[in-house]
Amino acid sequence: MADFDDLLAANHAYAEDFTLSGFDGIAHAGVAMVTCMDSRIEPLEMIGLQAGDAKILRNPGGRVTDQALVALVLGVNLLRVNRVLVVEHTRCAMASSTEDDLKGRIADSSGSDASWMTLGAIVDQENTVRADVLRVRTHPLISDDVIVGGFIYDVDTGLLRPVV
Amino acid sequence: MADFDDLLAANHAYAEDFTLSGFDGIAHAGVAMVTCMDSRIEPLEMIGLQAGDAKILRNPGGRVTDQALVALVLGVNLLRVNRVLVVEHTRCAMASSTEDDLKGRIADSSGSDASWMTLGAIVDQENTVRADVLRVRTHPLISDDVIVGGFIYDVDTGLLRPVV
Repeated sequence: MADFDDLLAANHAYAEDFTLSGFDGIAHAGVAMVTCMDSRIEPLEMIGLQAGDAKILRNPGGRVTDQALVALVLGVNLLRVNRVLVVEHTRCAMASSTEDDLKGRIADSSGSDASWMTLGAIVDQENTVRADVLRVRTHPLISDDVIVGGFIYDVDTGLLRPVV
Repeated sequence: MADFDDLLAANHAYAEDFTLSGFDGIAHAGVAMVTCMDSRIEPLEMIGLQAGDAKILRNPGGRVTDQALVALVLGVNLLRVNRVLVVEHTRCAMASSTEDDLKGRIADSSGSDASWMTLGAIVDQENTVRADVLRVRTHPLISDDVIVGGFIYDVDTGLLRPVV
């Protein structure tokens, strides 16, 4: 594990001041967010929350995939989630390239043909957010009482723009 | 959008001190982490990183799903990821209940039969981490130069325990 020594040393420092011992896994603010894996995104900080408050799902683009739906079903029914934010963001690699372009760039980098993969490039972010919010709202195991909103996060201003 | 007024007000406050404007989407520390959606987990903080440093993938349990593999292929080939951490955690709801038990609790909460869903309960966390690390290491579009480690994060101490 020497390859991770720097990160594990940082982890030991983190654990020295650890304050979350004994905390439960409930979403104490009742919030779940589906957002992108992008390194610029601070999911909790951007809405003023902290550790313990929210369930955070992250994948390329911030999509409501089948698995994100499973996560939200668990969150809503078992972990006290009552509000869901679907958050895509500006300058997202998944929304600023075509599927073929992404595959081409992966092939150039890896030296292997990536044609067989489905990457999930996003053609229209606003429409995608609307469709993804609808997927949550209509799910048979997510109560109509759950509030679902769709947003686009501006990585250059830090602001969330409501879409739906 | 009145239902999100509190979070949007917090977002405006966040944006007032925003310092990431103009930042790119590269993982500046070369790190990607696959971990759970659990509200107790602080992915960046636990390894001493900050915004801009890492790609973070989160789903129930912290599994290397097909979609997480897509994310890692993108991260490794296009976004300068060269180290991957697969991080499950102690007291995880996905690893402390059976699939049937989780479905039963969802049915109790929602009033609807959840038998049709696949939730992905984890039977053996260490073996799951090992298998998930292997999925990353053997992927044809993820270079052998990429370092992949598997860990279990203790939500009561803040410590990462290397598994593989």
